[in-house]
Amino acid sequence: FDADAAAIVGAAMDGKVKPLKSLGRLEVLAGRLAGIQRTAAPHVDSPAVVICAADHGLAAGGVSAYPQEVTGLMLQGFASGTSAVGVLARQSGARLLVADLGVIAPPQLRPGDHPVLDRRVRSTGTADSSTGPAMTLEEARQAVAHGIGLVEDLVADGVDLVALGEMGIGNTATASALTAALLGREPARLVGPGTGVQGEALARKVRKVEEVLARHADARDPWDVLARVGGLEIAALAGVVLGCAAHRVPVLLDGFITTSAALVAWRLAPTCTHTMIAGHLSPEPGHQVQLEALGLRPVLDLGMRLGEGSGAALAIPVLRSAVAVLREMGSFADLGLADEAPPA
Amino acid sequence: FDADAAAIVGAAMDGKVKPLKSLGRLEVLAGRLAGIQRTAAPHVDSPAVVICAADHGLAAGGVSAYPQEVTGLMLQGFASGTSAVGVLARQSGARLLVADLGVIAPPQLRPGDHPVLDRRVRSTGTADSSTGPAMTLEEARQAVAHGIGLVEDLVADGVDLVALGEMGIGNTATASALTAALLGREPARLVGPGTGVQGEALARKVRKVEEVLARHADARDPWDVLARVGGLEIAALAGVVLGCAAHRVPVLLDGFITTSAALVAWRLAPTCTHTMIAGHLSPEPGHQVQLEALGLRPVLDLGMRLGEGSGAALAIPVLRSAVAVLREMGSFADLGLADEAPPA
Repeated sequence: FDADAAAIVGAAMDGKVKPLKSLGRLEVLAGRLAGIQRTAAPHVDSPAVVICAADHGLAAGGVSAYPQEVTGLMLQGFASGTSAVGVLARQSGARLLVADLGVIAPPQLRPGDHPVLDRRVRSTGTADSSTGPAMTLEEARQAVAHGIGLVEDLVADGVDLVALGEMGIGNTATASALTAALLGREPARLVGPGTGVQGEALARKVRKVEEVLARHADARDPWDVLARVGGLEIAALAGVVLGCAAHRVPVLLDGFITTSAALVAWRLAPTCTHTMIAGHLSPEPGHQVQLEALGLRPVLDLGMRLGEGSGAALAIPVLRSAVAVLREMGSFADLGLADEAPPA
Repeated sequence: FDADAAAIVGAAMDGKVKPLKSLGRLEVLAGRLAGIQRTAAPHVDSPAVVICAADHGLAAGGVSAYPQEVTGLMLQGFASGTSAVGVLARQSGARLLVADLGVIAPPQLRPGDHPVLDRRVRSTGTADSSTGPAMTLEEARQAVAHGIGLVEDLVADGVDLVALGEMGIGNTATASALTAALLGREPARLVGPGTGVQGEALARKVRKVEEVLARHADARDPWDVLARVGGLEIAALAGVVLGCAAHRVPVLLDGFITTSAALVAWRLAPTCTHTMIAGHLSPEPGHQVQLEALGLRPVLDLGMRLGEGSGAALAIPVLRSAVAVLREMGSFADLGLADEAPPA
């Protein structure tokens, strides 16, 4: 993070024809983008939404309202352009990149569909983490490496902002277990409805997450936690975060799942939080806990709990606007009024 | 408001391939746009930001950090495209319409500048409302009529959403007095820093607003309050709100000033609240009070207190995205899965 670039942008914002700081978080976001990109001329000219998808053995334990086959069906929607995140990415002028890290029933693509990148580490998805490790350490490393590789390809292609997305039936349960393990919190405080479980089903989901935690209480370090708890798409997204940090690319978090990937990346490389921006706040109860641990404040708070990257995609226009204000808005100096900066 | 159209859109959103209600306020906003536009196919294809500007005699009492001449200077920025709201409207794909209702020093436009419409009701701005009426009842009616006329022109030109903006040095003081008078609240709870007054200057602003209220405590009705308290741009914006209600055009409120205009319109025609959407929440302390009175929840909360229409302009992409989800996202029926609607 380049504090000098951020300070230059802050001073430029102070010189714009307006009361000091009166554009609130738009000014803060412009400075943050500058610090991340290490330039006083930050840009959001070519954003991408990166979706990683995989299945979760834990889903067999009934933690989701949907069967595992739905993961592949949703990928079909990403490929055909009819998913929520597809619509929102188009609205935000962002390209969509979808990678399959281990979906049990991958979609049958048709001519004209967007591609789904094959980054399959385990074709069966993860194993059931409540009875054993979700994957091996080697597989976790491979998934993280795939995430880093996705960023390298995007950067080579000119992408200057990455929004995170995900798909994987059962992955709020996995994300809850990861978050509880990494932050030392009680699962009951973190587990929420996800796609819509409630009542007894929600209580069963909490118990499942507690089983996962108990099963892996002796995990040695963040890599070990990641491999034993899962999931494949979360590991890949942690890699995307690490890749963005390495390449000075702002990474826009979505909801509870992608933020669990951000927690993993943070525990592997603490300074990578400097590269993160929280796109929105999900009503999933653990999300606020995660964002507080990372020291992040969400841009939007619209009660969205769909995931896929939908909240992050919707936040992109706010970041674009922050940069546009910096680029295009007039300053007191332009008016020959350099001494007339406002009093407050 | 067409509750049937809103219900059809709500059902269509429920049928989209996602957990029920998981797009949160995007779904609510799509339904609200449908109800306002009285169609199950709501649209944000041609939005406009309408800025009304005028000067305030009350500003002579030292309620602002800036002299009155700044109103005209800011209009110059709107005309040249370098203002904050100009940048944000461009980002949101919205046209900008600027009307002068009574600016003391109107801008000298240059070739290539955007026009500033001459709707001047009083070339001197309002009179000092702490010592007498801001304007006559006839002038208030003329300003409101100008606002209605602006909407008629825009509607004829295909505009399908109007975001409100304003400019007028001293107008947070006027808006505080109007809000206090219309809602029966204490000025001290409503008056905030505006462009940046604090300490003794803020205390003086509160006293000024209290003087205005005391001076016009015998105002008979909302028209009388509007004429005696002012201001010209607020009256015109109240007219814009009324015009939008008459033409079924969604009207997106900005901050404290434009919402005071919405309060006036509501007191003149209570059902016009059905046409309103709150674009954002300003940190100006009275704004939340106003929105609660109108029963509105803001779309954005980014600490923006610049006014001009900046917060409303920034909210336009969220509304566009709500409509795009309705139009473009796939449904369970598309997949031949009409019975697979999710459980929650």
